[in-house]
Amino acid sequence: MMNTEETPDHPFDRAIALEALGEGRWVARTQAAYANMIGPFGGATAAALMQSVLRDPRRIGIPVAFTVNFASPLADGAYEVGTSLMRTNRTTQHWSVGATQSGAVVATGTAVFAMRRQTWSRPEAQPPSSFVPFDRLPRAPGVRRAPWVDRYDMRYLTGGLPSVWDGTEAADATSCVWLRDDPPRQLDHASLTALCDAFMPRIYVRRRLAVPIGTVTMTTYFHADDDMLAAQGDRPVLGVARASSFRNGYFDQSAEVWSADRQLLASTCQLVYYRE
Amino acid sequence: MMNTEETPDHPFDRAIALEALGEGRWVARTQAAYANMIGPFGGATAAALMQSVLRDPRRIGIPVAFTVNFASPLADGAYEVGTSLMRTNRTTQHWSVGATQSGAVVATGTAVFAMRRQTWSRPEAQPPSSFVPFDRLPRAPGVRRAPWVDRYDMRYLTGGLPSVWDGTEAADATSCVWLRDDPPRQLDHASLTALCDAFMPRIYVRRRLAVPIGTVTMTTYFHADDDMLAAQGDRPVLGVARASSFRNGYFDQSAEVWSADRQLLASTCQLVYYRE
Repeated sequence: MMNTEETPDHPFDRAIALEALGEGRWVARTQAAYANMIGPFGGATAAALMQSVLRDPRRIGIPVAFTVNFASPLADGAYEVGTSLMRTNRTTQHWSVGATQSGAVVATGTAVFAMRRQTWSRPEAQPPSSFVPFDRLPRAPGVRRAPWVDRYDMRYLTGGLPSVWDGTEAADATSCVWLRDDPPRQLDHASLTALCDAFMPRIYVRRRLAVPIGTVTMTTYFHADDDMLAAQGDRPVLGVARASSFRNGYFDQSAEVWSADRQLLASTCQLVYYRE
Repeated sequence: MMNTEETPDHPFDRAIALEALGEGRWVARTQAAYANMIGPFGGATAAALMQSVLRDPRRIGIPVAFTVNFASPLADGAYEVGTSLMRTNRTTQHWSVGATQSGAVVATGTAVFAMRRQTWSRPEAQPPSSFVPFDRLPRAPGVRRAPWVDRYDMRYLTGGLPSVWDGTEAADATSCVWLRDDPPRQLDHASLTALCDAFMPRIYVRRRLAVPIGTVTMTTYFHADDDMLAAQGDRPVLGVARASSFRNGYFDQSAEVWSADRQLLASTCQLVYYRE
């Protein structure tokens, strides 16, 4: 069967499928395959918002920065995505994006797109200097009531979820983990957006206690252009995620996403609400 | 003379002074004291946007996350600030913010405010373990055609601007620097917003070449509540700033801002355009 836009054969393509309503207006639908404990996986919602700009005929360039704020859990089913082109410069474009359900705002955000050209370039951060290959590590088990976790083949080098959730604190909240879409899928800017939200909440790694949490905002900077994504293909990426502060109901987490060729594809950060 | 809202006596208060036009509509004015090479210091513009939410009678809580996108350099003079309250939850609030000049969009952004309450809390990142005190370091010189730099007393422990701009690359782009408003001023969420943009562009530290640059987007997470800011007072903060990738016209930089008591006040990141 052909993989047409109407019947995408990868669950991620269904999660970011958009029905056009008019300029900058789309309908998306939550997918059971990407369900989370309450509402869908935020990464899938973020990716649908990103996709609405990627598919907009007014778009120039590729994403370089994207912020999404999760104002409320989504209900299962349809939601409306709206994009506004705020300004187009010679090589950059500024977008506002948002999602509503039954007329109520469920997400807001902004995106910067740019036409990049070759310049002096240097890496500065470095990937872990040595690591066990993806194929030699066991896949992490799924998470109860979080079907979206099964959509990523996650293999931890360090900092996996606790085996016992007894509240004995770990020394730190850092993880190093291989990640790949399941089934494997060519990486693109939409799936990279989602993947940046696929790191487990740092408080679980550090605190080993299952407290209620929710991401309130996420920002991603894209270092990867289309050529780097094509070179990555559907191979696993290596992620390193950490926290800097857990304080009075909120913690931050930041992560780098490295290609199979040790190139930095994206750096991302988020602020997460927690209770207790 | 009394320090009234109409005649603030600190230049920063003039830079964030807002004249109310109506609900969510304000006029701000660029200030010569915070001028940059082209248009005003972005941190001052960001702070004025933050201030528009802080002063809004609909506001609940304090800022926890703020993203501002710089769509165009501002012209000197008045600009209009607009805020939209997108959603109010039980303890959080989502805002969209923006600035226009002569009807054209010059900045966009989003803010999350929250009522925080005491929970389990742990630091994770650590400030530099040893450092020379502020009083024992020389103040960094100003920067030609960037008057805003004089509004911060900056004292570098490591990674200052090059003394010779000859393009011989430094080993890395990391700086550790004391920062204080000049004249000293009680730290608040607006001045902390501006301060997060006061780290010199990482490409200057790394590349030692004065290429054209401009911040396109900045995101700040606020770990500090009003009590922590009051405890800090007008003492210097310690900042650590670094980059992770310089690539094809864009680099990212991230920083932590530490209080005089070694508490994390804010973590911030930005994406910066560069030419050549």
